[in-house]
Amino acid sequence: MSDITRIEPGPRMSQAVIHNGVVYLAGQVGAPGATVAEQTKAALASIDRLLKEAGTDRSRLLTTQIWLADIAADFAAMNAVWDSWVPADNPPARWTGEAKLAAPEYKVEIVVTAAL
Amino acid sequence: MSDITRIEPGPRMSQAVIHNGVVYLAGQVGAPGATVAEQTKAALASIDRLLKEAGTDRSRLLTTQIWLADIAADFAAMNAVWDSWVPADNPPARWTGEAKLAAPEYKVEIVVTAAL
Amino acid sequence: MSDITRIEPGPRMSQAVIHNGVVYLAGQVGAPGATVAEQTKAALASIDRLLKEAGTDRSRLLTTQIWLADIAADFAAMNAVWDSWVPADNPPARWTGEAKLAAPEYKVEIVVTAAL
Repeated sequence: MSDITRIEPGPRMSQAVIHNGVVYLAGQVGAPGATVAEQTKAALASIDRLLKEAGTDRSRLLTTQIWLADIAADFAAMNAVWDSWVPADNPPARWTGEAKLAAPEYKVEIVVTAAL
Repeated sequence: MSDITRIEPGPRMSQAVIHNGVVYLAGQVGAPGATVAEQTKAALASIDRLLKEAGTDRSRLLTTQIWLADIAADFAAMNAVWDSWVPADNPPARWTGEAKLAAPEYKVEIVVTAAL
Repeated sequence: MSDITRIEPGPRMSQAVIHNGVVYLAGQVGAPGATVAEQTKAALASIDRLLKEAGTDRSRLLTTQIWLADIAADFAAMNAVWDSWVPADNPPARWTGEAKLAAPEYKVEIVVTAAL
């Protein structure tokens, strides 16, 4: 029995990896072509789902990194969704920057770690 | 009593999160409009302060990621400040890239983890 | 005896840092001027070498972040190398974005963590 658990492993990556009480999620995105608010909601919904599969939840987030394809245009709209999703008593450490993503239709990618 | 300690939690993020012997800091920046050297010094001063709040210091850094808004222009000036700050006997693993940051006046953002 | 082990420490960074059963690697690159496929192969070879020095291997990767200087041009070529390198049964969590790197000749930088 391994001390590493991989969730939704595929040929390129796992959607999450658990080791030593921490779960590391792959970058989560929304549907290409949707608004940044919709993509942020969808990425956060994927994060909720994967955290649940790992046996934890958003109240135990350690870190969050957020990459926006156009930070000047989309920072405020992403934050509005984020601020209503993040647990008020348990916010993670966060950093945010601009990066083009895997395809031009992706506006936001969110990468989190959490304690089990 | 939680196994997760959050330092300077706010509505959007904590400035640091401690779990299982590791402290994860949020991205630290300097004052908008200052030079990249000044912003680097200020970000590193915030890191020193937060590491101290967590009960550790820069000699126990594990990782450092550095994001510059203009890497061609500012890589050397950032590194001059970094090289004089990083403990010669205890340098962390590091990676550095270019990313626009939360506002155009920010020239550098630094994200670290450290052992307690 | 420290609880932190630093591999190939230099004045600016260590190439890897071990703590509490996890190894954190510095960003790895290939030779400036080579193709993205060649640079990806070289970065992954450096990763194999450093993981071995740490006492582990690519089957125990936890996370991988990949930064491409030109994601539209180079995503497919990088992935072709990655997909043939990553262990089919043990893929890490991954995220990928575009970022200019330390010098314009660098096309890809890869940052991994692994369990010992």
